[in-house]
Amino acid sequence: MSSTTDPAANLATLIRCPSVTPNEGGALAALETMLEPLGFSVERPVFAEDGTPDIENLYARRSGNGPHLLFAGHTDVVPVGDESAWSHPPFSADIAGGEMFGRGAVDMKGGIACFVAALARYIAEKGDPEGSVSLLITGDEEGAAINGTVKLLEWAAACGEQWDAAIVGEPTNPDRLGDMVKIGRRGSLSGAITVHGRQGHVAYPHLADNPVRGLLTLADALLNPIFDEGSADFQPTNLEITSFDVGNPASNVIPAKATAVFNIRFNDNWSAETLQAEIHNRLDTASGRRKYRTGRKERIDYDLVWRDRPSHVFLTRDAALVDTLGASVKAVIGREPALSTSGGTSDARFIKDYCPVVEFGLVGKTMHMVDERVALADLETLTQIYLRFIGDWFAKGRN
Amino acid sequence: MSSTTDPAANLATLIRCPSVTPNEGGALAALETMLEPLGFSVERPVFAEDGTPDIENLYARRSGNGPHLLFAGHTDVVPVGDESAWSHPPFSADIAGGEMFGRGAVDMKGGIACFVAALARYIAEKGDPEGSVSLLITGDEEGAAINGTVKLLEWAAACGEQWDAAIVGEPTNPDRLGDMVKIGRRGSLSGAITVHGRQGHVAYPHLADNPVRGLLTLADALLNPIFDEGSADFQPTNLEITSFDVGNPASNVIPAKATAVFNIRFNDNWSAETLQAEIHNRLDTASGRRKYRTGRKERIDYDLVWRDRPSHVFLTRDAALVDTLGASVKAVIGREPALSTSGGTSDARFIKDYCPVVEFGLVGKTMHMVDERVALADLETLTQIYLRFIGDWFAKGRN
Ligand SMILES: [Zn+2]
Ligand SMILES: [Zn+2]
Repeated sequence: MSSTTDPAANLATLIRCPSVTPNEGGALAALETMLEPLGFSVERPVFAEDGTPDIENLYARRSGNGPHLLFAGHTDVVPVGDESAWSHPPFSADIAGGEMFGRGAVDMKGGIACFVAALARYIAEKGDPEGSVSLLITGDEEGAAINGTVKLLEWAAACGEQWDAAIVGEPTNPDRLGDMVKIGRRGSLSGAITVHGRQGHVAYPHLADNPVRGLLTLADALLNPIFDEGSADFQPTNLEITSFDVGNPASNVIPAKATAVFNIRFNDNWSAETLQAEIHNRLDTASGRRKYRTGRKERIDYDLVWRDRPSHVFLTRDAALVDTLGASVKAVIGREPALSTSGGTSDARFIKDYCPVVEFGLVGKTMHMVDERVALADLETLTQIYLRFIGDWFAKGRN
Repeated sequence: MSSTTDPAANLATLIRCPSVTPNEGGALAALETMLEPLGFSVERPVFAEDGTPDIENLYARRSGNGPHLLFAGHTDVVPVGDESAWSHPPFSADIAGGEMFGRGAVDMKGGIACFVAALARYIAEKGDPEGSVSLLITGDEEGAAINGTVKLLEWAAACGEQWDAAIVGEPTNPDRLGDMVKIGRRGSLSGAITVHGRQGHVAYPHLADNPVRGLLTLADALLNPIFDEGSADFQPTNLEITSFDVGNPASNVIPAKATAVFNIRFNDNWSAETLQAEIHNRLDTASGRRKYRTGRKERIDYDLVWRDRPSHVFLTRDAALVDTLGASVKAVIGREPALSTSGGTSDARFIKDYCPVVEFGLVGKTMHMVDERVALADLETLTQIYLRFIGDWFAKGRN
């Protein structure tokens, strides 16, 4: 009988693998060692693409007679930052004050450790689940995210894999374990606007065309009016200008161009396409009415380049999945979790194209920070929630 | 008898000295060789300051019985740029199509060449002028301008030098020789505003404070309303935002700070002090009313740093100087020059603290460009104007 029923032991093993993205660091090998005794067949596909590091991934399946549950996550972690600022070495898994310290403790080796412990307990207590369980774990979530979840899903689907529901073990709770299940995510869209002016001397503004004036006008059109006040399930759509750059070192020279980069997190009032059309419309309108006096009379000369591919907004309405997880949380901690669509994107945005997906894991407060750590009590509680969920979800599938 | 009566010959000698700022390049030595036979005593003070290159300068005086006329300028030139793009090598002084090619041809070795030729002709034709003539020539106008005209003026004044009028030989004519005498300059003021926000993830804007929103608000306050519509003698005061920088490479991160740099060219409706007060007032008011929705309720947190020392606005009202020069232009070319206060600053802004000063030289069209060049006819015409001016100005001093 394996000892993987203890989430703290599982997590200590994983933390001690220095899997700073994009390095595997031994973490997937350690996970394979945990899963094989539990009856999983494990594959370790490596994906590669020009200009990005080769990435190791893991897909483990334990076949059964019934529906197919997927657990998804990542073993890569962000860099440790200022190592000397850590109270305990970041790959030590030291325990102090009832907490285990280490990079990845909550994001998200801890979630994986708890899910493995829950499975081990289930099998030990009840035998085979009435269906299949798989783990889809990437080593490329915190990095370029090119050779990770997207390719792993495509690869598994091409092998004939189909899933009925997925749970992503990211740290979804802002403050206390059990506060928040994520059932959807806003979409995300990024772009860069460059205004082309005419360089010249500040003493002769009528001979030049300062692109900063034009870009201020367009930035204003991006920010005003607001896009919406939110929807039934989502926060308001929000645009942030994340950079605005000219890079002109000479204060007596009017520059030739200026660029602003923006990101929009949008709700289900929009699709990526309708929002892109709205942005184009705002910019086209604003470029015809210069806000600030300038030597030029023409339209503001700009170009807009969309960056990356958009993340589409999604919402999981699968009651069997959402209700079962909510009930599992309540059964263990006595409180209903909030069903939230707030916050950033996650790999759930890719999984949602294959099956209903929710996210639930540890408390994210210390993620990506110095002294990332997890309460041992939280590890035990999350394990119990996952255990309860596995039992109830397969039971529902039987009915 | 010296041959310095030919401005083209003088200019060819100067162009062939590659005096790219801060290098003397032999240009001041060549000028000294021209001036000594004309009866000038020449000094070559070198000024130095930590962090800037040592600079050679020249002060030449020919004493006489009467008022003291100063001619000011520079022999340093801007870099040649793309040398392969020049039709003739930039230090060749090649003549083609009635034009002499070379870096500094109009800015402003040409002006010096003409003034020397005018003096040589005056002395050859009429003997000693009825007063003193001095040349104050720096090698640090196009560069840091730290070890040039300002120190040369202080040094000469400390030696007891006093002047009654000055003419700066910068290229003041936009299109045709004789079009424009500059009798004043707007002031110049530069500053940098940094808005301090709070870094965060774009998905959680309420936990962050995007400084770009704050800086857009402050930029708007700088540009609106306009400062004035101009004055009797000057163009409108104008502010340009010359740079706006965030430098944030991550489009999912709200940055921590944003900086804008601005320059104001201001007329005699303002002093540097009243304008600084106006800017402070605009920013203080605007920082209390955030224009764009944001997580923060407090005032926009910004700091403002004034850059360089301000250039003060000035206007030369000395009729003996301005009228005599205007009449000299008209006598030679048959047209009245415009008396202008437009354009950038020049070393005249320093000289004006010692005596009345005007600027008049060649046509500036090709200055700082590839294929900088001057029409040989313009060299002759400017020499005649300077010659006429020298005679008439000393004659006026006698009356
Ligand atoms: Zn994560
Ligand atoms: Zn010049």
